[in-house]
Amino acid sequence: MELISLPFFSEKCGAAKSSISEDLAIINRVFHIEGIGQLESNSGASGGVRYMPRIGNEISESVVATLCQQLEDPERILPGGYLFMSDILGDPSTIREIGRLFASRFATLNIDSIVTVATKGIPLAYATASYLNVPVIIVRRDPKVTEGSTVSINYVSGSSKKIQTMVLSKRSLRAGENVCIIDDFMKAGGTINGIKSLLKEFDAKVKAIGVLAEAEDEEEERVVDDYTSLLQIKNVDSNNQQIEVIKGNYFQ
Amino acid sequence: MELISLPFFSEKCGAAKSSISEDLAIINRVFHIEGIGQLESNSGASGGVRYMPRIGNEISESVVATLCQQLEDPERILPGGYLFMSDILGDPSTIREIGRLFASRFATLNIDSIVTVATKGIPLAYATASYLNVPVIIVRRDPKVTEGSTVSINYVSGSSKKIQTMVLSKRSLRAGENVCIIDDFMKAGGTINGIKSLLKEFDAKVKAIGVLAEAEDEEEERVVDDYTSLLQIKNVDSNNQQIEVIKGNYFQ
Repeated sequence: MELISLPFFSEKCGAAKSSISEDLAIINRVFHIEGIGQLESNSGASGGVRYMPRIGNEISESVVATLCQQLEDPERILPGGYLFMSDILGDPSTIREIGRLFASRFATLNIDSIVTVATKGIPLAYATASYLNVPVIIVRRDPKVTEGSTVSINYVSGSSKKIQTMVLSKRSLRAGENVCIIDDFMKAGGTINGIKSLLKEFDAKVKAIGVLAEAEDEEEERVVDDYTSLLQIKNVDSNNQQIEVIKGNYFQ
Repeated sequence: MELISLPFFSEKCGAAKSSISEDLAIINRVFHIEGIGQLESNSGASGGVRYMPRIGNEISESVVATLCQQLEDPERILPGGYLFMSDILGDPSTIREIGRLFASRFATLNIDSIVTVATKGIPLAYATASYLNVPVIIVRRDPKVTEGSTVSINYVSGSSKKIQTMVLSKRSLRAGENVCIIDDFMKAGGTINGIKSLLKEFDAKVKAIGVLAEAEDEEEERVVDDYTSLLQIKNVDSNNQQIEVIKGNYFQ
């Protein structure tokens, strides 16, 4: 969300600042009508105009309804009650829409960077970051030479209770940054919790957590509570080939 | 690159087809001046207008010059002569620019999907796919339950001569698709060659290969030749803390 000064537009378009202001007002009106965001103007010497991602309720409801419908296709059921989602996560326009939903929800939190963990959360993280105009930082499961020196932690996966490792390049974050964690899927929340512990090592402040889909919590305790989910996968019945997917807590 | 019919715009804007055509001509002219693409119109009943990504030479040269300059920072040198690039690959606007460069080069090849391998190529693949309006398919190093049944191959890494594995979900590609491979870095080309062998199992046609950076080929034989690179890393001298990065074959 870059602040662009009016003189930039005046020079570029060879127009007076007053006509630029009128044009920006028109653009802002169209953004409102289309439900795709708004322009925020600051006046004064250091003033300018900034795009704030915003999404109308109707649009966000329809994006999520489409996703629910796509995910309820019984062909998606995999052994162990998992759902095949790679085709949905492979579609750039769907990914952009999801990113826009997260970005508009988190737009006012002064996020400095988006953190995700390899692999499936990466496109969602970039889409969100793109709307917020901040960098993406990728936590890995394994250290790689191209990361330079890294900080690593061990954590316990929430659902399988296995000990796992996560690493993050030391150069990736400055101390005290406001970060937003984005991931594709959350079950008990062990992975998200692992990222949180890792980020603590960097003195980062986790301001928001966004997950595309959460699994219905069963007997196991959920270890993360302050998250925003777009979808909730309620019931995957492999025997009867039925899946129930409902809206997540984004809409509460 | 979706074809949008003129009646779509007439209905949306409540305007006559002739005014829509005039407006599209203005938009096309601005695109030309800014060097950001062009609108292609097809007339007739099934006609419409389609955005073709295109990038002016000046812009592409300046994007790559900036990247060269950023990469030549000696702080980036890692043990073994590798370069730290995660910060550059983490910047969504840089990634979008790189994607636009690849997309405009490959726009006329009727690409059906973009294929990349986890992890670092993923954002570049999405950026390219986003401009071409096609899906992204991610090859993995390890099978995961959420991929469903997979096809796997073993291949020999070009530089280390180690045997490695790659897997791709069986549902990800239809037979006969035109694909474009995108990756961040190519040394001898063993990984790209591995992807090519894997794609052969899907009867896919590799129409283009785009890599952000190629290493200068040394004694080892390069095993891939039909690729497009934006950058060439010529010389990483750890002792004298010097790096030389030049334009890739994109500009030849």
